[in-house]
Amino acid sequence: MKLVSVGSVAFDAIETPFGKTDKIVGGAGTFIALASSFFAKEQGLISVVGEDFPTETLDYLKSRGVNIDGVQIKQGEKTFFWSGKYHNDMNSRDTLVTELNVLGTFDPILPSSCQEADYLMLGNLSPQVQLTVIERLAKRPKLIAMDTMNFWMDIALDDLKKTMAEIDVLIINDEEARQLSKEYSLVRAAKVIRAMGPKILIIKKGEHGALLFHGENVFFAPALPLEEVFDPTGAGDTFAGGFMGYLAATNDDSFENMKRAIIAGSALASFCVEKFGTQRLTEITMDDINARIQQFVALSNFEMNLHGTH
Amino acid sequence: MKLVSVGSVAFDAIETPFGKTDKIVGGAGTFIALASSFFAKEQGLISVVGEDFPTETLDYLKSRGVNIDGVQIKQGEKTFFWSGKYHNDMNSRDTLVTELNVLGTFDPILPSSCQEADYLMLGNLSPQVQLTVIERLAKRPKLIAMDTMNFWMDIALDDLKKTMAEIDVLIINDEEARQLSKEYSLVRAAKVIRAMGPKILIIKKGEHGALLFHGENVFFAPALPLEEVFDPTGAGDTFAGGFMGYLAATNDDSFENMKRAIIAGSALASFCVEKFGTQRLTEITMDDINARIQQFVALSNFEMNLHGTH
Repeated sequence: MKLVSVGSVAFDAIETPFGKTDKIVGGAGTFIALASSFFAKEQGLISVVGEDFPTETLDYLKSRGVNIDGVQIKQGEKTFFWSGKYHNDMNSRDTLVTELNVLGTFDPILPSSCQEADYLMLGNLSPQVQLTVIERLAKRPKLIAMDTMNFWMDIALDDLKKTMAEIDVLIINDEEARQLSKEYSLVRAAKVIRAMGPKILIIKKGEHGALLFHGENVFFAPALPLEEVFDPTGAGDTFAGGFMGYLAATNDDSFENMKRAIIAGSALASFCVEKFGTQRLTEITMDDINARIQQFVALSNFEMNLHGTH
Repeated sequence: MKLVSVGSVAFDAIETPFGKTDKIVGGAGTFIALASSFFAKEQGLISVVGEDFPTETLDYLKSRGVNIDGVQIKQGEKTFFWSGKYHNDMNSRDTLVTELNVLGTFDPILPSSCQEADYLMLGNLSPQVQLTVIERLAKRPKLIAMDTMNFWMDIALDDLKKTMAEIDVLIINDEEARQLSKEYSLVRAAKVIRAMGPKILIIKKGEHGALLFHGENVFFAPALPLEEVFDPTGAGDTFAGGFMGYLAATNDDSFENMKRAIIAGSALASFCVEKFGTQRLTEITMDDINARIQQFVALSNFEMNLHGTH
């Protein structure tokens, strides 16, 4: 298996200024697997759901090339549920309900089909669970990427640092980078964070794009200026899934190719926010994605003639 | 005269987390003229100072090709003085002192050498004064750009709208764009603002770069990720000066060339913040600027192979 991801497969109930949903399918693992499936034609997902989780969704993931041998279905238990309400600026949200359910005792099982992963994506989960996944793999993947959040910095910083020491790529947002490094400047934050383990750091800045720190190089990825963000839920996971799917499909971890992977992830994330939950990701085609990628090229491409003004 | 700029020539006293200055030379007009002088070899500056302003500074501007026939020197009066203190994040500041002095009664005089400007840069000033400059020109410049600030939106919105109706390019920051348009989304804000007059809009986002709206096109310009910003004073004026200097020198207002002009302005602004006041702008050479522009190219350049993953 080229790519293996771990992350929650869950129910979300979302309220934005544009509307609200009942329980719909969400979860970091779901968004990651859907997004990466556009590039990685074979992949495995490690997760856990309750007996209340719709088999159609699992079947749909399978139809997209996602091996779900590693998705445990716990009879008599309920799926992880999160409910949140976004504020008017869509940049902040209140969590209304968090029911851990099956996720509270999640003990990841790695089926043999997933043991030989070249690329491993650790979706946002307890850093202890993320470390367990690494430890249970038969061989160390070529590249391990990890998402996390301020919650784990608050309550499990030591575990987080232990896991960070084992990975290659950390994907966090600017606020989290500042909290983790205690530095306001993102350039300084990057130095502090990369000294903790990950050689490569991606700092997501929402509507302001993303920064990639790779060796001595920095890439400033644009974000597509959007008229409106309908629902930001899952955008970060979709970005990470698109990024890792692209890397797994191209099998090239150079700076130049990671730039492309970031643009691919950004393009997918820009679709994700157009409708509630995973809906938009189930509608789009590779042609849609390629057209969107062309928009990113147009948005940030320029040619400088340094002698033009002499 | 290819380029004429209007803006304050002033004294600043600045306090940042890195240190503080006594009265040093500052002012939007000073930064604009210095920055544009790297590209525009001939230009005029319209401003006013008191008898306390150092003649060496005016001589230095002349030595950089700035015609100062339009800089009035008011005997018996004092130069505009601003004093401010930046907060630790460098993104916000408190104004400690504002002494308008000669700027309070500024009545711009346009010498004959400035009457035929092709490019006009209206630095941040009362919109009434900005409009007066346009009205006093013998012919309408090919391109008029304008900076403004939230202060004028608060106290002189009607005047501001009158001036905006006469210009081609508005250069403001994201907070100002939101205040002016009453829209949070910058894409929507751009629509509202461009309906007020300026066909072309540049929204500066500080460390997050800048957006250029030009016809149906959008360009997302990166900002150089900096370890520290020593003193942000004048960075916006330097950006505007570099932008207009580049346009005046190349005489090309196409989207592609405006992208280049924005990169040129961004490169100059990235130097400006490295030391207090105008100091850094007086030290750097065209080679330094070209090297910095190459950093911008490296930072945002990527090549997408859309078939690479099929």
